[in-house]
Amino acid sequence: MAMTGVLRPGHAQIRVLDMDAATRFYGDVLGLVETGRDRSGRVYYKAWDERDHNSIVLRQADTAGIDFFGFKVLNKATLDQLDADLRAYGVKTERIPAGELMETGERVRFEIPSGHLIELYAEKKQPGNGLPAMNPPPWSTEAEHGIAPLRLDHGLLYGPNVNQVLDIFTNVLGFTLTEYVTLPDGVTKGALWLSCSIKAHDIAFVEFPEPGKLHHIAYLLDSWEKVLRAGDIISMNKVPLDIGPTRHGITRGTTIYAWDPSGNRFETFCGGTQPYPDWDPVRWNWEGLADGGLDFPQRKLHETFLTVVS
Amino acid sequence: MAMTGVLRPGHAQIRVLDMDAATRFYGDVLGLVETGRDRSGRVYYKAWDERDHNSIVLRQADTAGIDFFGFKVLNKATLDQLDADLRAYGVKTERIPAGELMETGERVRFEIPSGHLIELYAEKKQPGNGLPAMNPPPWSTEAEHGIAPLRLDHGLLYGPNVNQVLDIFTNVLGFTLTEYVTLPDGVTKGALWLSCSIKAHDIAFVEFPEPGKLHHIAYLLDSWEKVLRAGDIISMNKVPLDIGPTRHGITRGTTIYAWDPSGNRFETFCGGTQPYPDWDPVRWNWEGLADGGLDFPQRKLHETFLTVVS
Amino acid sequence: MAMTGVLRPGHAQIRVLDMDAATRFYGDVLGLVETGRDRSGRVYYKAWDERDHNSIVLRQADTAGIDFFGFKVLNKATLDQLDADLRAYGVKTERIPAGELMETGERVRFEIPSGHLIELYAEKKQPGNGLPAMNPPPWSTEAEHGIAPLRLDHGLLYGPNVNQVLDIFTNVLGFTLTEYVTLPDGVTKGALWLSCSIKAHDIAFVEFPEPGKLHHIAYLLDSWEKVLRAGDIISMNKVPLDIGPTRHGITRGTTIYAWDPSGNRFETFCGGTQPYPDWDPVRWNWEGLADGGLDFPQRKLHETFLTVVS
Amino acid sequence: MAMTGVLRPGHAQIRVLDMDAATRFYGDVLGLVETGRDRSGRVYYKAWDERDHNSIVLRQADTAGIDFFGFKVLNKATLDQLDADLRAYGVKTERIPAGELMETGERVRFEIPSGHLIELYAEKKQPGNGLPAMNPPPWSTEAEHGIAPLRLDHGLLYGPNVNQVLDIFTNVLGFTLTEYVTLPDGVTKGALWLSCSIKAHDIAFVEFPEPGKLHHIAYLLDSWEKVLRAGDIISMNKVPLDIGPTRHGITRGTTIYAWDPSGNRFETFCGGTQPYPDWDPVRWNWEGLADGGLDFPQRKLHETFLTVVS
Repeated sequence: MAMTGVLRPGHAQIRVLDMDAATRFYGDVLGLVETGRDRSGRVYYKAWDERDHNSIVLRQADTAGIDFFGFKVLNKATLDQLDADLRAYGVKTERIPAGELMETGERVRFEIPSGHLIELYAEKKQPGNGLPAMNPPPWSTEAEHGIAPLRLDHGLLYGPNVNQVLDIFTNVLGFTLTEYVTLPDGVTKGALWLSCSIKAHDIAFVEFPEPGKLHHIAYLLDSWEKVLRAGDIISMNKVPLDIGPTRHGITRGTTIYAWDPSGNRFETFCGGTQPYPDWDPVRWNWEGLADGGLDFPQRKLHETFLTVVS
Repeated sequence: MAMTGVLRPGHAQIRVLDMDAATRFYGDVLGLVETGRDRSGRVYYKAWDERDHNSIVLRQADTAGIDFFGFKVLNKATLDQLDADLRAYGVKTERIPAGELMETGERVRFEIPSGHLIELYAEKKQPGNGLPAMNPPPWSTEAEHGIAPLRLDHGLLYGPNVNQVLDIFTNVLGFTLTEYVTLPDGVTKGALWLSCSIKAHDIAFVEFPEPGKLHHIAYLLDSWEKVLRAGDIISMNKVPLDIGPTRHGITRGTTIYAWDPSGNRFETFCGGTQPYPDWDPVRWNWEGLADGGLDFPQRKLHETFLTVVS
Repeated sequence: MAMTGVLRPGHAQIRVLDMDAATRFYGDVLGLVETGRDRSGRVYYKAWDERDHNSIVLRQADTAGIDFFGFKVLNKATLDQLDADLRAYGVKTERIPAGELMETGERVRFEIPSGHLIELYAEKKQPGNGLPAMNPPPWSTEAEHGIAPLRLDHGLLYGPNVNQVLDIFTNVLGFTLTEYVTLPDGVTKGALWLSCSIKAHDIAFVEFPEPGKLHHIAYLLDSWEKVLRAGDIISMNKVPLDIGPTRHGITRGTTIYAWDPSGNRFETFCGGTQPYPDWDPVRWNWEGLADGGLDFPQRKLHETFLTVVS
Repeated sequence: MAMTGVLRPGHAQIRVLDMDAATRFYGDVLGLVETGRDRSGRVYYKAWDERDHNSIVLRQADTAGIDFFGFKVLNKATLDQLDADLRAYGVKTERIPAGELMETGERVRFEIPSGHLIELYAEKKQPGNGLPAMNPPPWSTEAEHGIAPLRLDHGLLYGPNVNQVLDIFTNVLGFTLTEYVTLPDGVTKGALWLSCSIKAHDIAFVEFPEPGKLHHIAYLLDSWEKVLRAGDIISMNKVPLDIGPTRHGITRGTTIYAWDPSGNRFETFCGGTQPYPDWDPVRWNWEGLADGGLDFPQRKLHETFLTVVS
């Protein structure tokens, strides 16, 4: 088959400091659709155009950050095969029973050398995107409630040992390295963009001394004009903005970085290349990261990009 | 792996009636990059952002139309496996030696029940997109020469037996049916959109009595504003326009259909959904094709859409 | 002063066949803001970003069409001067007392040789655009309720004697002729675009045997993407669409023409040139109207443009 | 008449430190069209869609900055009247003979209390915008050479006594105050946006201790996507960027600020409101300037905005 193995980022569980502030933000400002709450108090969201029941799960906690980042795989056989492949590689995996996360099947969870918990799963209920199954219009009013991204797009995680992470994602999980930044030594990869599809990235990693940190969760918008609209809504709601609107040199995508009320950075992302696994990855050297890689118009390495994580 | 099997539409050989008029159109109006001419007089083009040597091959002939439509597959082992799978299914295949098409490896060619020649190949030289390998800017002046699409996006072919074609593409070649239109009987599929990635379509078919016909070859633009620009350039060059600018209900993409000087329809396409293989295909009934499927703002089934092919 | 005399199109009174259908359309589909109803049953609207109390007034009647089209002038002295100038020129004027139209001062009304009633007035209450007077954000949620144009932009009226109308608008009312189309004789002006500002047009006329007809009322959108969005909303609400989305060669503006439930054509218009009174008007010959003037990408003279009015 | 008096910003003479670097920048990066050079070595440019012979004049000098900013007025009678009005008000005027500036008629020059030289003139040769006089397409290849703005849009000048300047521009020259910022005292106007048309601003002033300084010259683009394209070209040419791409709260326009090779700031500006003289000016308090007035998405008062001028 053409699309096999790991399909896409499926869910991320985010820690928030104040659930009321968080749900106001995720529901009305970011404009995700709330799809449920569970007994442990977690609140579930999907982006309006996603088919699956949930993609963002909020958990109240004392510190912000990410609990885990999960990928949907093609089917149960793929899940079992990837679990076996991970174990054969030497990665310890754990099975989380179906239902622990709402409307979600059994998950295979493992920790990667950057200190993050990654999950794979094959099943999540698909209530759909709210449009009729036959002759659907291209969008509904949900597409204009708040920033209203189309989907969870990718995550950028900060932690140590990203070259070991690269090996697992490319050699075990079947991802493609699409772009990377070398450290000042000019050789060692210090930042990685990885795709399991033809998206510019489904997940990305940056070398960082502290393990398990979240740089940002990205949500997809479908035009540069929608990025401006996101910036307007961010401002109208006094959401603290980090960088943008601008264009990344890396991926070519357009972007705004800002922070949720708990200090978790999010990105409203649009566009980007559509790389194939037979393409050479695009290389950025350390100077290039500053010289257009992060912020193409400004050619500036905003200091927060390298230092502020949750 | 995540992206395996058939990767993408790789090349289409198009018959043109007058090579001089054709090269003016494909080079300066559509704005493809000429990459070579062979001894048989064929002219090769790539879209500016494509990495491979060629995607459109023009051949002078007495009738317009398409000679063959080819897909790049992941590697040689995939090519051999798909060849074996096709034969096992009962499809007769033929091997075209490397080099018959410039800078292109061995091809597996087969005729499908709609009367079209389809090809698979694993190797094509990759001269790249003209941007530096390190720290590339997002585009170059080539991106503004003529309409200047980013890539060959998909083809729509007209012919009989599209349900047999559907079976081959989904069950042998690993494509996903993303959207379809049922005929007035409400049951039989009469038009198919098929993806081997997360593009809204990599190839599409419409049931038609005459075999082997070309409806259009589509080229990707990256914004609705670029679709308008394409319409301006089409008009400035008095290229006959068929439909648009508008939005398709099917795929949600924005579009213009127009004709090359030989009467081969082309599309300047932008956007569209990004469906995954675990999504249900979107269904359009026959009324829905007219009622927004083809032309969402106009809710009109332009007669040429169903009747004019090359 | 720099902006003097006639400032802008201020109001148009439109006849509708069914007030309930009309208010659903004007309020929820077109997305104007209802600002009042008067004792005679007329319903008043403003576009969200307009400062004045009303710009569109609906009156229930047995036939669709336009009752009158009014311009706001700088002040009372201007109103009196223009009234005197019109009379001196030979145009009979009438004074409509303040208050006959809600929140609107005294109006000077006159019939022009095309059979239309034109009005001038100096005063209309200014409730504003709903944004705070200090530190306003660039838009509010009203800007996304329905098509939600920024303002009434212009009208296009069909009737006889447009060259006499041209003389009154340019020599008495101070408008500038920005573009025109000559009839097949190559000399006589048959269509006129007139500006009292630096808008591509504040009012336009096309020669037509029947007097007093309405071709369309145009509403301003601020991007080509919003024109697409208007097309989507038009389709979602099964509003009959006439032409577009496309670009006019004349004015360069982007556009959709469609019809309200009573058969009054409206336009969602964006962009256009910003001509000054010292510029030569742009000339289109009769062939040019078809060859890009009306529909630049399609180079087609849609038959309805010349024949369907209300 | 409707558009009378002062029509528009017509020309600005800019001092550059190195004419070769300047002409490379203004011709190939900003993408203005060179229209002439005079005996004193000045180089003349127009934006591609301007009708007049020149709008930007470069003069080599030891310091960057602006020599004078000129407005085109309706006609010779207007020029004489405004000259008389200025003298009657107490402003000393000077006549510069026709031809001193290429293809430009007699100019009335005067110094305003902010220390800037302002000019009025009624005549400048109109070679046009390069498009045919009949049936013109909406743009030509010049519209894609470099950033390629449509026109000189406005200037922002820094100097003392801006409230005296306000009085002259509104009470003598017929401009309208469209927006303003009050100083921290909450009362005194410290920044002024002034329009002689329905543009959001034709000229603007900010209170500053040093007289005669240039903050920026702004050029008009016709979409937010073109602003991004400008940012790309700015980066590709390593032009130092100051602020943006972003949206101003003041005027609602989208923008990038950057510097020419001599350190003169320029703006690529798009959109903005279209205010009329009967609208109340929009007020921003000092906190509001920082809180969205300058940079709406970022709600940040970039320090360079208040301190760096030429």
